[in-house]
Amino acid sequence: MNQDSASCPDRHFFGPGSSRLYIKGSLYPIEVGMRSVTLSRTYESGGQEFSSLPLYDTSGPFGEAEYEHDPLKGLAPVRDSWAFDYGAVESQGAGLSMTGRKPLRARDGQAVTQMHFARKGIVTPEMEYVAIRENQGLEEWISRSGAKPVTPEMVRDEVARGRAIIPANINHPELEPMIIGRNFRVKINANIGNSALGSSIDEEVEKAVWSCLWGADTVMDLSTGKNINQTREWILRNSPVPIGTVPLYQALEKVGGKAEELSWEVYRDTIIEQAEQGVDYFTIHSGILAATLPFAEKRRTGIVSRGGAIMARWCKAHKQENFLYTRFDEICEILRSYDVAVSLGDALRPGSIGDANDRAQFSELKTLGELTLKAWDRDVQVMIEGPGHVPLNMIRENMDLQLEYCHEAPFYTLGPLVTDIAAGYDHINSAIGGTLIASFGCSMLCYVTPKEHLGLPNRDDVREGVIAHRVAAHAADIAKGSPTAWLRDELMSRARYAFAWQDQFSLSLDPVKTSQIHAQNIAATGDSSANAKYCTMCGPDFCSMKRSQE
Amino acid sequence: MNQDSASCPDRHFFGPGSSRLYIKGSLYPIEVGMRSVTLSRTYESGGQEFSSLPLYDTSGPFGEAEYEHDPLKGLAPVRDSWAFDYGAVESQGAGLSMTGRKPLRARDGQAVTQMHFARKGIVTPEMEYVAIRENQGLEEWISRSGAKPVTPEMVRDEVARGRAIIPANINHPELEPMIIGRNFRVKINANIGNSALGSSIDEEVEKAVWSCLWGADTVMDLSTGKNINQTREWILRNSPVPIGTVPLYQALEKVGGKAEELSWEVYRDTIIEQAEQGVDYFTIHSGILAATLPFAEKRRTGIVSRGGAIMARWCKAHKQENFLYTRFDEICEILRSYDVAVSLGDALRPGSIGDANDRAQFSELKTLGELTLKAWDRDVQVMIEGPGHVPLNMIRENMDLQLEYCHEAPFYTLGPLVTDIAAGYDHINSAIGGTLIASFGCSMLCYVTPKEHLGLPNRDDVREGVIAHRVAAHAADIAKGSPTAWLRDELMSRARYAFAWQDQFSLSLDPVKTSQIHAQNIAATGDSSANAKYCTMCGPDFCSMKRSQE
Repeated sequence: MNQDSASCPDRHFFGPGSSRLYIKGSLYPIEVGMRSVTLSRTYESGGQEFSSLPLYDTSGPFGEAEYEHDPLKGLAPVRDSWAFDYGAVESQGAGLSMTGRKPLRARDGQAVTQMHFARKGIVTPEMEYVAIRENQGLEEWISRSGAKPVTPEMVRDEVARGRAIIPANINHPELEPMIIGRNFRVKINANIGNSALGSSIDEEVEKAVWSCLWGADTVMDLSTGKNINQTREWILRNSPVPIGTVPLYQALEKVGGKAEELSWEVYRDTIIEQAEQGVDYFTIHSGILAATLPFAEKRRTGIVSRGGAIMARWCKAHKQENFLYTRFDEICEILRSYDVAVSLGDALRPGSIGDANDRAQFSELKTLGELTLKAWDRDVQVMIEGPGHVPLNMIRENMDLQLEYCHEAPFYTLGPLVTDIAAGYDHINSAIGGTLIASFGCSMLCYVTPKEHLGLPNRDDVREGVIAHRVAAHAADIAKGSPTAWLRDELMSRARYAFAWQDQFSLSLDPVKTSQIHAQNIAATGDSSANAKYCTMCGPDFCSMKRSQE
Repeated sequence: MNQDSASCPDRHFFGPGSSRLYIKGSLYPIEVGMRSVTLSRTYESGGQEFSSLPLYDTSGPFGEAEYEHDPLKGLAPVRDSWAFDYGAVESQGAGLSMTGRKPLRARDGQAVTQMHFARKGIVTPEMEYVAIRENQGLEEWISRSGAKPVTPEMVRDEVARGRAIIPANINHPELEPMIIGRNFRVKINANIGNSALGSSIDEEVEKAVWSCLWGADTVMDLSTGKNINQTREWILRNSPVPIGTVPLYQALEKVGGKAEELSWEVYRDTIIEQAEQGVDYFTIHSGILAATLPFAEKRRTGIVSRGGAIMARWCKAHKQENFLYTRFDEICEILRSYDVAVSLGDALRPGSIGDANDRAQFSELKTLGELTLKAWDRDVQVMIEGPGHVPLNMIRENMDLQLEYCHEAPFYTLGPLVTDIAAGYDHINSAIGGTLIASFGCSMLCYVTPKEHLGLPNRDDVREGVIAHRVAAHAADIAKGSPTAWLRDELMSRARYAFAWQDQFSLSLDPVKTSQIHAQNIAATGDSSANAKYCTMCGPDFCSMKRSQE
């Protein structure tokens, strides 16, 4: 670990105006982490004066100014103290390498999923946690503004209905629960993970920590290189956000990279291992069927999902149906014992706009809808992965068909990218399509970095990717009318009009970057006043806000 | 001028796969500049094999590999050789400082505008130029694909109707004509210009040249600091794209920065000076009226247009109606003598999403519609400026009302930005809203850089801003079904599937950046093969395209 990296994130990451706040639950002994922004003055919104604002915060304990982080020990387990009976026992498996803790699994193959409890009418601590978190402690103000605050019961009902998921493996006690569903704040995911060609465990843990600080709601570890198990263990033990994986990658490593040598047994053992480590959701490519492969063969860019390409090869080699499809019930039996959510992979997502919305893609989407019902039969939480490369005018159809075919299970898309020619700027490309589909009801956006199509992202690329998609997710929340999203913008604009620079930094999506840019510009002019009533963009004489006030 | 900057742009800016191509006209002795991409193999699209592809190109002679540029001499005047009789005579004004050339103006106050000729049924060289340019030399392929190529007559009819403009001052002979209108390729504008607080003439000329190379279709010089006249002269003489200004800024400098001391006479003299220098379009804030000021005073962020704030102050100080409104006919009389297009400024654009689509904004938009008819009465070409900060779900109304109120004159928007909290990432914020409004029919997007709301952009910021908005404009062209836009994406994706890296770089929006990123990643792996059938993102074993091909 570098001194300036994961082990020691900037103590003032969010700047001097921010601190970490914990709001207690009333049903359970939970403490819901948020970021509190202290404002330099009061600003009015909806008849209330705000001298501070609590913000949704993904940074976990890293957001605490005094937090001492030792990545070798991992984060303190927050869920252990909730004394909720998941109905789990210690597994017979080996202890976890970092903590020595024995993994848990459900008694007698029972379900321990949030969906299971929700359907039984039980509000879990996780449900209360996400309700408080979504409201940002602003229940009263939300009610006064004419909207409905999120309640634990509403969370429970959405989870029971399958319209939202709370990915929270019982073996990931470090997790701060969050919810993915279209009646909640739009979420984003950051992919990290080494490939065979570069990066180390340290770098990947560092990227995971920084992803949370910058605003990633979940992190997928897509490592395919060496030390795949140890990398994941480190990431999980240091992650306050849900971790997703594609277990097929590790299964493939186990058979020496030869897709045709994959087997159900190898795959099954892999998902059990990862479930016992605490992975919160698995991408599983069960929807690519032998019958649909010919549709993909006619495409401009074939199969661009790694998992899809692997399973296509296996199907062809064995002349058999995809075992992730034929064994799906058995997979669900395992997932329900740990509460691992399934993210049904879109193996046939379009890799070019010319392939968008084609028969291959939509045939698979229908299959994912069938599998959704099977998973729900076993109380397994489900989300559906979506494209990919889709022109702007063809995005709506994706959302509409997903809702129809997949029974309103949450949609989780990669972009969509709205053109094929934006290499080097694909984070922007993806943010454009992502904003639109999220405004239509997509629940989570998988980020894309500037390195997409070109290489493995470094830490700066992760930052650019995360913030670009935070812009997209927030813009979609605004378009959907989220009162808390509107409130943050309103206070930001009032701070802007008041030339309250520190308030602007604190309320922006990247406090560090905005304050640095402003400081550089002020320094360049020789004006030492950081509270100047103008910026270098227009200078004092041409500042419209200054004139407007006068 | 730095050796590595404006005076000497990289000779291989677009990489080894690109060269400059000129297509001759059939009506006039014009040569329409394009970029030709030579492909490493042939790719099929729509029944035709492509071994090269001509691309729309804004780089002018800077795109020629062998071009020797002397910024002190400026570019060669391309329009002088067309022998088209604009009906202009030499003005009695002083010669231009750089070239000594005498400025031209219309005989006896006649109109020399493209709209004037169009309405008389005349196809000008500029109209033929833009027709060829829009088709990218692909007329036959466009026809075969079932679409209609642009013809000079169609250009003429759109200009006559006021639905498109060709900003082309008769005193800007260095210009390569382009068209702004919703039945043509979506255009983008880059703002440059020093403020009182920084940057030099050199830097601004450098930014103008690089803006063209990166893909800006027009450039606005918003300088407000010292040497405002000389900066503009340098930019004009070195610019192959139309140059826009806000003459009010210079008029204000002339009266010592005191808005209340502005007068019609000072303003009139300023627009004549700038028209004689060759400015192609003026932003004029004629739509802000004394009667609408009270609506703006209730806002969260008041008036955020610099020109609007200046005129509001003048109106209040004099208790008179805005002279840019009362003198609008006289302004048009001047503009028609040089063919300066008017870009009707949205002085009351919203500066926060809470102010979007309010009475102040839409009252002004109606006034801009009235002024459009007045300008058209004098054959003056018009476009309408639009917001600003607008939530995603409120963008459509802006486009619909603009078409209705402003009689389908082209719309030219700043963004819209879809949230207020994206400081440091406002280029992405703007690209999101810009893509959507352009897909609805907005004709030109004004870029926003990462420094928006924080400071004056440097060269790197200009690049980020230009390319982000090129992504937006191109994505909108894709959504609108432009056959040439689709073709570029199709060849890109075929090159991607073929691992033809150089073709991918050449076809991407930023060939230099993409090739650099790829080279760095390949170097980091120790693999010297730039034609590896994978990239470091997934590595060789997990490359889905490689597997898909197998």
